[in-house]
Amino acid sequence: MRIFLTLVLFASLGALNAQKTDSLTVRAIFDEALEEGECYENLRSLCKDIGARLTGSAEAEMAVQWGKKLLESYGFETRLQETPIPHWERGTLEAGWYITEDGQMHKIKVLALGGSVGTNGMISATGIEAQDLADVERLGKGGKLEGKIVFINKPFDQKQINTFYAYGGCWPIRGNGTLESAKYGAKAVLIRSLATPIDDHPHTGGMYYEEGGRKIAGAAISTQASEELSTALKAGPVQISIEMDCRSYPDKTSHNVIGEIKGSEFPDEIITIGGHLDSWDVGEGAHDDGAGIVHCIEALRILKDRDIRLKRTLRVVLYMNEENGAYGANTYAEKAMEAGEKHVFALESDGGGHTPRGFSMDGPQDRLELMQSFAELLAPYGLRELIAGYGGVDIGKLKKHYEGIALIGFRPDSQRYFNFHHSENDVFEMVNKRELELGSASIASLIYLMDKYWEQEKTFEGGTE
Amino acid sequence: MRIFLTLVLFASLGALNAQKTDSLTVRAIFDEALEEGECYENLRSLCKDIGARLTGSAEAEMAVQWGKKLLESYGFETRLQETPIPHWERGTLEAGWYITEDGQMHKIKVLALGGSVGTNGMISATGIEAQDLADVERLGKGGKLEGKIVFINKPFDQKQINTFYAYGGCWPIRGNGTLESAKYGAKAVLIRSLATPIDDHPHTGGMYYEEGGRKIAGAAISTQASEELSTALKAGPVQISIEMDCRSYPDKTSHNVIGEIKGSEFPDEIITIGGHLDSWDVGEGAHDDGAGIVHCIEALRILKDRDIRLKRTLRVVLYMNEENGAYGANTYAEKAMEAGEKHVFALESDGGGHTPRGFSMDGPQDRLELMQSFAELLAPYGLRELIAGYGGVDIGKLKKHYEGIALIGFRPDSQRYFNFHHSENDVFEMVNKRELELGSASIASLIYLMDKYWEQEKTFEGGTE
Repeated sequence: MRIFLTLVLFASLGALNAQKTDSLTVRAIFDEALEEGECYENLRSLCKDIGARLTGSAEAEMAVQWGKKLLESYGFETRLQETPIPHWERGTLEAGWYITEDGQMHKIKVLALGGSVGTNGMISATGIEAQDLADVERLGKGGKLEGKIVFINKPFDQKQINTFYAYGGCWPIRGNGTLESAKYGAKAVLIRSLATPIDDHPHTGGMYYEEGGRKIAGAAISTQASEELSTALKAGPVQISIEMDCRSYPDKTSHNVIGEIKGSEFPDEIITIGGHLDSWDVGEGAHDDGAGIVHCIEALRILKDRDIRLKRTLRVVLYMNEENGAYGANTYAEKAMEAGEKHVFALESDGGGHTPRGFSMDGPQDRLELMQSFAELLAPYGLRELIAGYGGVDIGKLKKHYEGIALIGFRPDSQRYFNFHHSENDVFEMVNKRELELGSASIASLIYLMDKYWEQEKTFEGGTE
Repeated sequence: MRIFLTLVLFASLGALNAQKTDSLTVRAIFDEALEEGECYENLRSLCKDIGARLTGSAEAEMAVQWGKKLLESYGFETRLQETPIPHWERGTLEAGWYITEDGQMHKIKVLALGGSVGTNGMISATGIEAQDLADVERLGKGGKLEGKIVFINKPFDQKQINTFYAYGGCWPIRGNGTLESAKYGAKAVLIRSLATPIDDHPHTGGMYYEEGGRKIAGAAISTQASEELSTALKAGPVQISIEMDCRSYPDKTSHNVIGEIKGSEFPDEIITIGGHLDSWDVGEGAHDDGAGIVHCIEALRILKDRDIRLKRTLRVVLYMNEENGAYGANTYAEKAMEAGEKHVFALESDGGGHTPRGFSMDGPQDRLELMQSFAELLAPYGLRELIAGYGGVDIGKLKKHYEGIALIGFRPDSQRYFNFHHSENDVFEMVNKRELELGSASIASLIYLMDKYWEQEKTFEGGTE
């Protein structure tokens, strides 16, 4: 009995010491981020020296070189990974207006959705409003969309506490509203911007066509313009005109940028963390996803500069082309499997640079419980949401080849994100220094804890297709 | 045994139903705030129709009338409560510069601390830097401060996760740096602004003199100017000149604005919620404390418009003069005791309009546990910090007369607050609509739950002095 008690005592003391070490390490990580942080200046450089960096643009190629140079400067093993990419350009013409029954002309800012065809000169048609995709189908089947310019006016559900759910509810309008309207003979589609506030800034984003389907132009207008156009359409017939010369070119080649720190015990086991290097072509891609890029680079830098060695290889991936195709993420996942790499878990930061709230995990229950076992260590830093949920678009591509892999999404506060997202508002000045730094430290801390307490038998080898 | 089980079952079902009702009520409160919210437009009016409203100013009196009118418009029982107030004015002259050894002149924006005396014309003296109050004492005892202009340069501790703790660490410099330096013959004091970022905006705030002590002028300079002045002082002798014509006048009279909704079961038991109506005279007092004012008014409005009756009387108090004396809060607490009012608990919102994180309580352990028992109901709304901690300056005055009363501080995210606080940056545009609305709903929800589950024997009568 005495021996048993002694053993229990030793075990408890061991656990206490481990917890104390962990608590000191997490504190050191946050101190480094808040006192010696470099992520904010890195973001300034990405946003101001380069700016918007649409896949296929010269700026996106500059960003690849920027990333490579930065990772090398920190002494990480750095390489470029070639990947095919789509190539779409906005062109230089984007104009729109509508005329109400009384002959009054109203100019509207139209912003082509990414991937849209152009209008091939100015096109005009009678406008018609649909509330959502079900409404498009109903009106379309009734023959009401033929030859019309369809305006899909679905606002954010403001009741959602996390604005990403409001965005998710409107996403199908942007992704599929154009192709669905095209089926019923529509001439073009305008959508209400996927945004939280009522203001005058249109927000772009990806849209899709069906293989072999009719291709008509799709564009966003601001929430304020949407309110006004809706009022006009209720009052009487409205003639809408738009002109856009955006177009797609053949696929070309770009790169993911990869940097890593070799693991001390299991160097062939890989932890991937990352964000996306490309952005839309308006604004500066500051929150989306410059923040994620500098978060993850800084996480590696902090661990290196504070001499916190992980057992496993920590790899940061600056993905090319999340916004319109995720070609880079597909390439990364395929090459990982082809090379027979072992992957442990992956983390993505693509929710902006606001104050950290926690992490969500798309993965096995026991991995979620491992993450949740750090609740007490992370709570003092405001990381109180350790929940099941979404991982991320880019790391999500690993799922196909690594069944059951744990994918972790970093969760910053969401309230302001869709004021900026995919619009000219997404600039460096909208990112707060401390909020950004806390994000880097949060990611570094979780990675450190997950690596330390990860059981070896939970490692995945690729090959599940 | 069967009877026992049945009883247990009924009790459990009852608890489940109560929880379901509570969950629906909280959801309804948030829906009202997010879809039909009026706090943002109320804040716009307070900031733009009135603006800065320093105690004793014409604008502060306008704010009293604004508050009364607004509370009446919502149908609350409304009254003004007379209170003495201090009266200090900035005046119109505020200028400063310093000359380095090489004869170079550097202009600095000086911003008098609230309560400071003027300089009675331009004063010039050699500058000397102190790091903190201990350093003031050390230099003072060494005879180094005699005839000097003392510059106290204590920066925020950026390692603090909650920026209010960084503020707390610097607060003594602002409150007492001037009076301590005066003891050692200093001619005037400049302090580094109590602010998070390095920028060019000075932040004011309250300062104090000792009864009968020497009164010298005290002012803040920006964090950027502090960095530069510190560099200059390290390089060689620096001659500093300042001129300020701020001054104090005899106390006068103003009002707290009080509105209430009578309780359905215990109308003589009072729940006080509030913020402060006055602000500093720079900026618009948007986060400090326009946000708190509209938070609390909106909490009453939501409960009324959604027909959620509390058992107890819910009273909103728009306190006059939190910033430089808390005279209004003293009056409110004294009058409550004199009238023999029963007070149950009080809540204050004076931490800005950012995303809610939770509440802190200064009160008995069992009241804290009551608050924490709502954790599961509040977590979906991001309210995950239900902790022991500070209540608030204004409600804190109730403590003197109601020993053991539970004082609850509303806790929004703190990261950006000290970018704005007490500076020209504290304007309406810096407040986000949804973040503000979530604050109102958070307060209304907690009040509803606390009232519902408050045990009657936990009511206080005044009289402990």
